[in-house]
This record gives sequence, structure tokens and C-alpha cells, in this order.
Amino acid sequence: MTYCVGLLLDDGLVMASDSRTNAGVDHISSYSKLHLFQPGPDRYFVLLAAGNLATTREVVDRIRRDLDRTTGFDAGGAPAETLATVHYLFEAARYVGRVSREVQLLHGPALREVGAAPEATFILGGRIGHEPPALLLIYPQGNAIAATPETPYLQIGESKFGKSSLDRFARRSLSLEDGARLCLVSLESTARANLTVAPPYEVVLCPKDWMGPSQRLRLDERDPDLVALTESWETGQRRAFESLPAFAWEAPAGGNAAT
Amino acid sequence: MTYCVGLLLDDGLVMASDSRTNAGVDHISSYSKLHLFQPGPDRYFVLLAAGNLATTREVVDRIRRDLDRTTGFDAGGAPAETLATVHYLFEAARYVGRVSREVQLLHGPALREVGAAPEATFILGGRIGHEPPALLLIYPQGNAIAATPETPYLQIGESKFGKSSLDRFARRSLSLEDGARLCLVSLESTARANLTVAPPYEVVLCPKDWMGPSQRLRLDERDPDLVALTESWETGQRRAFESLPAFAWEAPAGGNAAT
Repeated sequence: MTYCVGLLLDDGLVMASDSRTNAGVDHISSYSKLHLFQPGPDRYFVLLAAGNLATTREVVDRIRRDLDRTTGFDAGGAPAETLATVHYLFEAARYVGRVSREVQLLHGPALREVGAAPEATFILGGRIGHEPPALLLIYPQGNAIAATPETPYLQIGESKFGKSSLDRFARRSLSLEDGARLCLVSLESTARANLTVAPPYEVVLCPKDWMGPSQRLRLDERDPDLVALTESWETGQRRAFESLPAFAWEAPAGGNAAT
Repeated sequence: MTYCVGLLLDDGLVMASDSRTNAGVDHISSYSKLHLFQPGPDRYFVLLAAGNLATTREVVDRIRRDLDRTTGFDAGGAPAETLATVHYLFEAARYVGRVSREVQLLHGPALREVGAAPEATFILGGRIGHEPPALLLIYPQGNAIAATPETPYLQIGESKFGKSSLDRFARRSLSLEDGARLCLVSLESTARANLTVAPPYEVVLCPKDWMGPSQRLRLDERDPDLVALTESWETGQRRAFESLPAFAWEAPAGGNAAT
């Protein structure tokens, strides 16, 4: 399993992922699930991937191959669809969805024979031209939904454990740095509850006027920033728990009793 | 869906549940999922139920019917197995598991014809005689696991959203009241993230030397204790988030910057 989260803020995009992959409990390793594409000065894309690791790997490889074939034309003579040729981010999402479907259709029958699933889910963030940054979640079926002002975050993978902090704090008005802290808190809550999610965590911060990330972090478990953040969150949680109000029947001498 | 949680503490048992049930998003209502049985002066049982509502309802009805037939004997002449006749809590769990299997086998074929599932899962807490309180999770297959000193909590239903606070704070040494606050925090995190979990919340506190609950709470969303607890937790969460340390690159003028 894995856990990836993206935030669409007034100030830009924040996207984050863990790096744990597993095929059963005895085959655990670390793979990046955050992929940056900058195929031209007028565009950039950040792709987060969850699901079958072979599917997501081949999708990323096909995207890169399609970009290498910059002079390619399809059968009708139109420029072949790639991340370099699409005009809108929703077209980029449709393209990634199509590539994902192709890979799943290729390997699906053999996988299903052994009870495995070829599915993969993606979050795509980025900008093209003068459009503001956008953030989309691409389903295994190839269709996509977008982050909106009302729902500024998207999650894929093991998403339930880290959802409550997002519900509480995810607002369009957060700074990119607060957004990054929120993503890390959400990742930490998930990693704490589920062995299949773990550091290193990757985080990108993409200011709304930039054509790419201003910061790209890779925080392993000994990283001073991550240690400080985790300890601070832990302390804050403990304070919150210890200051919960007493029930009416508790004696005033109790540590939590109000006077 | 539903969410129930039980804690096995040095001081006794705390068990809690929400009251929301749903069959699709347009058929939502409120049912108690916390059932108390006190079939004799030497024993008590608290049963939390999640899964198919008709299954859990019939399991509870059968348990009560079996208790009514206090003079019953099985075909071999031994006293029929009921919550009044078992000698250990694990035998009570096996009995509930058997009743659950019987109900599932009765209705399963008809349910599966329409794509519905008959499964139900239970948490059983209680005491018999001089044994200390115990807490078991009964699977739909009828087998059961127990809470232990290392894992003092058990969850059923929509368990992921509320797990991180349990992982953080669930310790055998918690007071019953702190355990109740922890269960309510876990319920609130779940209700916030998932429409199918909602108040009223039911909570019982069972001191280790009692033969039943010392407190039985039913907190609807306007209950002053629940409102105070939720607001306090919300404030504590916000303080924890706002006091997270700044990243190295942030200007000292930033609200979170350390000096």
C-alpha cells in the first residue's frame, strides 16, 4: 500500500507521498511515488502514484517515452498526445488515464490468473500556460475528478488514517508551508497506524506563479525537520488529550476537573 | 456502517459505539449497537455489534430468548448453552459466535441473491465469577481474538479513521474516565470523516471489581459533556497544528518560526 495527498491552495500546490511499497509483509522496499515532469517552459506536472507498482512504473516509463518521441505524429498526422502537446491539465489527466488503462489491459489477464490486481490510481498536479495550477485524481478506469475550493485536498492509497487532520485543517487559504506541514502530519498519522506506509516522505511545494516546485523535500525518519515536526505534533496531541474536560461525576481533585 | 471500540484497562472496561445505521445514503436512522446483559449476580456482558443490522438484531434477540429459557436442556440432558450457563468469557464469545453463524447461514443465501452480505462482527466485554474483566472481538466466522496488555483496544466497523488517537493514547494504565474520553475522541474523528458514523454515542464504564457498568452514557450531539469535549479537542488540535515548527527556509517573521 501507499499514501499520497495533494492540496490545491490559493498560493499554489503542495503534493506529498510516502515511499513504502510491499508485496506481502516479507517483501517491503522503498520506491519513490512522486514524479516530476517539466517538458517545456510553459508547463510542469507532478504525478503521485498508488496501486500496482508494476503498473505505475510502466505508466511513468511510457509517459517518458512518449515525451522522447517529440516529433511523433499519430496515424492521422496530428501531433501524438504527450504531456508536451496537451493544452489543458484535464487533457493531461485524460492522457495519463488512457496510458494507465493500456497498461492495465496488457497485464490484467495474467495478474487476475494469480488473484492479483493491475489497478493504479494517480494524483496529477501542475500548470499549463496561463491557466492556474490544478489538481486531479485519476481513477483506475481512466476518468478523473478535480480538487475544488470546497474540497481542496485529494488522497490516494491508504487514505482513511490520515483524513481527519485534512478535514480539520485543509483550507485554500493555508500557506504552502502550512500545507506541507499538514501533509506531513497526515502522512505520520497514517504511517503510525499502518505498516505499509513509511518514510522517506517526499513533498513538493509549487507556488502559483512558478513553473515547477520551489521546494522539493525528501525526509527520511532521521531528518531533523521531520523529527522536530513529529515530536511537536506528538506533544500537541498529548496536551490536547490531557486538557480534555472532566465528566460531571469526576471529583474536582481529578487532573482534568474544571473549577 | 458503524464504529465501536472497547478498551481493556487495569481499572476495568470501557466500551463505546455510535448509533448511526444506513442502507444506502437515503435510508439513515439511529439504532443502539451497545447491548448489556446481566443474567445473574456473578456475571455481566456488554456486546457491541457492527455489520448487517438484521443479523445483529436477530443475534441479540436469540441471546435474550436463550436466557428466557432458563430451564432448557440440550438433547444430551446438559443445560443448554446461554450467557447464564457459560463458565468463562471465551465460552460466551464462542456461544455468540455460534449464534451469529446460525443467523448468517439462515439468511445468507437470500441476501447474497441481491448482492447483500449477512456478516456481523462483535466486541464482547464482561466478567464471570472471580475472573478479571476480559474483552474479545468475534469475527463473522465465529472465532475470536482478545485484547491484551500490548493491544488494549479492539475496534469493529469503520475503524481506520479513529485508530491514530487509539495508537497514540491507549494504555492499560489509563483511568476509566480517560478511557471514555479517548473513545469519544476516536468516535468524533470517525464521525467527522464518515457520514455513516454519528451520535448519539453510547459509552459504558465498568470498574474491574463491579458486576456491571458504573456509568452508562448516551450522548447526543447537543449533550453538554460531548459539546465541551469536542470543542476542547478541536482547540487542542488547532494549537498543536499552529505550533508546528517552521522549515529551515522560512523567514523568522513567519508565524511558526522558531528563534
